[in-house]
Amino acid sequence: MSVSNHHRPRLKDIDNTGFGANSNVEGGRLLNPDGTANLRKRGIPIWERISVYHTLIRMKSSHFILFIFLFYTTINLIFACLYFFIGIDHLGVANPSTAFRQFMEAFFFSSQTLTTVGYGHMAPYGMFANIVASIESLIGILSFALVTGLIYGRFARPRAYLLFSPNILIAPFKEGKAVMLRMATYKNNHLTDVEANLTLALHVKENGKTVTKFYPLPLQVAKINSLALSWTLVHEINEESPLYNYKKEDVSEAKMEVIVYVKAFDDHFSNIVQQRTSYTYQQVVYGAKFLPMFERTTNGNSTVLELDKINAHEMVKLPEHAHSQPTQS
Amino acid sequence: MSVSNHHRPRLKDIDNTGFGANSNVEGGRLLNPDGTANLRKRGIPIWERISVYHTLIRMKSSHFILFIFLFYTTINLIFACLYFFIGIDHLGVANPSTAFRQFMEAFFFSSQTLTTVGYGHMAPYGMFANIVASIESLIGILSFALVTGLIYGRFARPRAYLLFSPNILIAPFKEGKAVMLRMATYKNNHLTDVEANLTLALHVKENGKTVTKFYPLPLQVAKINSLALSWTLVHEINEESPLYNYKKEDVSEAKMEVIVYVKAFDDHFSNIVQQRTSYTYQQVVYGAKFLPMFERTTNGNSTVLELDKINAHEMVKLPEHAHSQPTQS
Amino acid sequence: MSVSNHHRPRLKDIDNTGFGANSNVEGGRLLNPDGTANLRKRGIPIWERISVYHTLIRMKSSHFILFIFLFYTTINLIFACLYFFIGIDHLGVANPSTAFRQFMEAFFFSSQTLTTVGYGHMAPYGMFANIVASIESLIGILSFALVTGLIYGRFARPRAYLLFSPNILIAPFKEGKAVMLRMATYKNNHLTDVEANLTLALHVKENGKTVTKFYPLPLQVAKINSLALSWTLVHEINEESPLYNYKKEDVSEAKMEVIVYVKAFDDHFSNIVQQRTSYTYQQVVYGAKFLPMFERTTNGNSTVLELDKINAHEMVKLPEHAHSQPTQS
Amino acid sequence: MSVSNHHRPRLKDIDNTGFGANSNVEGGRLLNPDGTANLRKRGIPIWERISVYHTLIRMKSSHFILFIFLFYTTINLIFACLYFFIGIDHLGVANPSTAFRQFMEAFFFSSQTLTTVGYGHMAPYGMFANIVASIESLIGILSFALVTGLIYGRFARPRAYLLFSPNILIAPFKEGKAVMLRMATYKNNHLTDVEANLTLALHVKENGKTVTKFYPLPLQVAKINSLALSWTLVHEINEESPLYNYKKEDVSEAKMEVIVYVKAFDDHFSNIVQQRTSYTYQQVVYGAKFLPMFERTTNGNSTVLELDKINAHEMVKLPEHAHSQPTQS
Repeated sequence: MSVSNHHRPRLKDIDNTGFGANSNVEGGRLLNPDGTANLRKRGIPIWERISVYHTLIRMKSSHFILFIFLFYTTINLIFACLYFFIGIDHLGVANPSTAFRQFMEAFFFSSQTLTTVGYGHMAPYGMFANIVASIESLIGILSFALVTGLIYGRFARPRAYLLFSPNILIAPFKEGKAVMLRMATYKNNHLTDVEANLTLALHVKENGKTVTKFYPLPLQVAKINSLALSWTLVHEINEESPLYNYKKEDVSEAKMEVIVYVKAFDDHFSNIVQQRTSYTYQQVVYGAKFLPMFERTTNGNSTVLELDKINAHEMVKLPEHAHSQPTQS
Repeated sequence: MSVSNHHRPRLKDIDNTGFGANSNVEGGRLLNPDGTANLRKRGIPIWERISVYHTLIRMKSSHFILFIFLFYTTINLIFACLYFFIGIDHLGVANPSTAFRQFMEAFFFSSQTLTTVGYGHMAPYGMFANIVASIESLIGILSFALVTGLIYGRFARPRAYLLFSPNILIAPFKEGKAVMLRMATYKNNHLTDVEANLTLALHVKENGKTVTKFYPLPLQVAKINSLALSWTLVHEINEESPLYNYKKEDVSEAKMEVIVYVKAFDDHFSNIVQQRTSYTYQQVVYGAKFLPMFERTTNGNSTVLELDKINAHEMVKLPEHAHSQPTQS
Repeated sequence: MSVSNHHRPRLKDIDNTGFGANSNVEGGRLLNPDGTANLRKRGIPIWERISVYHTLIRMKSSHFILFIFLFYTTINLIFACLYFFIGIDHLGVANPSTAFRQFMEAFFFSSQTLTTVGYGHMAPYGMFANIVASIESLIGILSFALVTGLIYGRFARPRAYLLFSPNILIAPFKEGKAVMLRMATYKNNHLTDVEANLTLALHVKENGKTVTKFYPLPLQVAKINSLALSWTLVHEINEESPLYNYKKEDVSEAKMEVIVYVKAFDDHFSNIVQQRTSYTYQQVVYGAKFLPMFERTTNGNSTVLELDKINAHEMVKLPEHAHSQPTQS
Repeated sequence: MSVSNHHRPRLKDIDNTGFGANSNVEGGRLLNPDGTANLRKRGIPIWERISVYHTLIRMKSSHFILFIFLFYTTINLIFACLYFFIGIDHLGVANPSTAFRQFMEAFFFSSQTLTTVGYGHMAPYGMFANIVASIESLIGILSFALVTGLIYGRFARPRAYLLFSPNILIAPFKEGKAVMLRMATYKNNHLTDVEANLTLALHVKENGKTVTKFYPLPLQVAKINSLALSWTLVHEINEESPLYNYKKEDVSEAKMEVIVYVKAFDDHFSNIVQQRTSYTYQQVVYGAKFLPMFERTTNGNSTVLELDKINAHEMVKLPEHAHSQPTQS
């Protein structure tokens, strides 16, 4: 009867999150907002620890362009030194008066060789200049093969282009309340078979030691066929929720962190894309609900999604007495 | 007994379509025939809202070629201005008489540098001309790295190459009727593990407000191993169908829209491909059946699929009295 | 009791193969040995029906090289004509005596522009020659962007590299017999999660009309974790098999075709690969078993897979009387 | 009662590993530590047996660079011979005195043509030199298209970047013991949906013949959502384990091999990645447990994963008497 109700299994903590129970400490978070783990690796040299290719294709565009420019200048400087050392009379130019101008001629010849423009008003004469030029033009070709790969890699890297609401809300839901966050794609891409997964991390005291416990947060709708508009993820805080009986101050005390993982099929890339983010207790808004973020166009023929309203919410009173009958936990 | 029959669950409307219940208005449609959502995004700048790469690889070929040509001309014009400003005597050519001819020389020198042809009858002399030429040849190489990526991206973009019948038919089926539409691949590609999914959108009045309700339309065969010939999707309008009891005029009144989503594995790309389309009530043909679209070759050794017959159908009488016993809904 | 045994469901024919029941005629086959459908498409122009990219990346290497060479020559011939028409004195060369030699100079200048070598002993002078050269060098760059994409596409196209035994055997198995065919990867690739699927097509008389019926052929082992050695697919011809009671002559009469579909994950490409093939009744060997195709190395430390023995089999007597109790079908 | 316990099914050996029961011999192993099968293929020519592309993209970087350099030199040598044979006076250079210097001029001209630098102080004159140069510049472009593809392929090849502990431990677990091995990603990549699969191979005597038997080793946690830190795979040696009752010396005698297969989704590549490895009985450490490999940073805000401690373990006493009640096997 009512007893059996007490035995109704609350959601158990899980140990397959890939994070350790004692991996984290107060003040830190498990996942950064951009979805990377708040983690450093050590013990092997940096060049083995870093994937150069992925660092370059995930780099901001402005940094990437700067990198390319510096790379080009560096290679040219190295070869300019070599040509300068060999003597720029081996490049078939009348020897300019100053060493600086000589070096500049060597530099320009280098750039003409590296990019394979090869005008020819400067050209290598003699064994050494020819060997160096021959190697440089090979390096030029290889470098630009590399840059082609990087540029394609940057463009073709599958991404979900998901915009998450900066806040996570504790909102009224049915007779009780629910955890809510909102997402939308911000590019002209279309996601299908979108799955979302919420994991709750709580830092709780156990035998005087702080341990991290993980719980799944089941969603009202965990998979949608197609993400055209926005999607509000809703976890109802009912009797089976690990957040049941948690009050505003408990959330802060336990330094609650909600890890969001979204996986979908993207028709831009015809590939599976995924995006992760994480909310800490500071991002929780207690007692608020999202406002609509789409409206009709004036001619009424299509819908407009207002991306700047992703976080639009208004404060509302929560039904604090909804769960007036406390259950033993 | 018969009572339990009344309780037989009719298909419920679903809320995991990614479209909102009140997102759309009369006159509009949810999905365009090409599968894109009938939706605009707003609130963030256009360059953040648009994926340039995907816009370029989805662009029509003729537009893409025009884009490349304009891009090439623009870059050349910019650099031609720079060389013209520096003075084309720094390009080693005898100064032509008119400014126009001087500019043209600068333009041609720019194109020879950008494409890295670098004949050398024109070549940069002096610091400024050399620096500009050095930068332009780098830009040239980067641009063509970019174009290589775009061209490869255009070619390698996985696509299902599916041709859908322009009309959706209400055809006789068994003792009753069914919704039917037909598809075939129109390229020399071969799809395997083909899954189709039909979603019905109905705009119904509820409490004086028009809301959009979504229903799955179960198919007789929802997955085929291999799509070599054509495939006719069949949704039987039986007691469990949301279209049961819907008459011709009801379909128009509810501004019925059928959203088609096909997912398959394509052996051209060795990748999952997907294609979406949508039919509005105007595309429904009430009382018609598809005619065969393949026949034997004259020598009898293989089959010919006639793609121009994808929509071939003839009008037939529907068994209107098949469901004479109305059920309460 | 025994009656219920009669009701034991034999495998039913299936209609989700993507082939029509009346699509094929005597003398033909559904699938070619290379896995393509024995099918022609018609009704739309060839350039809409053919994927140029995929035709080029699936082409034999020798044909592809020939295609590149012809393409290069054709473009050069076209531009050679243009330069010849403009007059090769605009290329800065002393006018050779014969028209043929003039045309050859134009041709070589074209090739120097198209490949962006641009030696410069020939160079464009005057408006027309410059415009044509400027366009040609752009076309050159674009063409080689295209060729880069094609070459990469050819290399990176995921393939299973599966070798199938040219024959399909009816071999003794347990107390009865089984359909057997053997496969192995012939490259240095390694397949994991390998799934195989056999579909039987029988052309049977029904109401005086020949219709094609399809049946799944369940396998003893339909999925293996890893395909390092060879894999023999075994379909036991037991009471539930559609081939039960089929004799040697029945197989020929029904023009039996066995369609094989293999899907796996390949660690070369980190991609799903698939390969199809088909066996007709002429490829069936009645009463034979495969001989082992691997052996120990002489030093005993590794295994040698002998790919030339993929079809090695010896004739054996089949237990014809194993199914002496006919069942009604 | 207790009898039924005797019937409790122990894990049966499996036959879907893709390795044959008699494929291997004493002294050898099935899988190499790098995950490739310990297998040679024979019977077809090497160029059909080897995927050149994959050999080149899996090659060590230093070998790849050497390969490119040798390829470049070889092509240049071949064309240098051709130009030398035609006569280098057709390259527009004053004939140098020695044949070696003449050949070097031809070589440098070849490299200028192959890389399409084409300075022009050397240029082809006459039919033969022009034809050869025209072909060489085409080959140059094609080669570098190829190299671009290879470089991109090397970079973009999806890899799991997993580091496995060099040893596999028999460690105390609950009241009994367990097989344990540890893994972590060593690059800045993040794996999600990580699945691990352990297969045990035992070489046992059966009817006087050594046969290889395969058993699955079920894991305590076989799938984790996300691999940020390290993951210790744990197979409990309980009554259902094929290793139950196996003593230290049995493991050696049966030449135990544990095959590890890990599959995950990698967000670097947005692709499924997989990695295999294998442990032989020599790598087993009997009676040891892993030491932690992560710690807090000094400021306490993030976690540090120490990759050099992947194999850190200390010897411990195993609860040998835990399974004092022998069961019949």
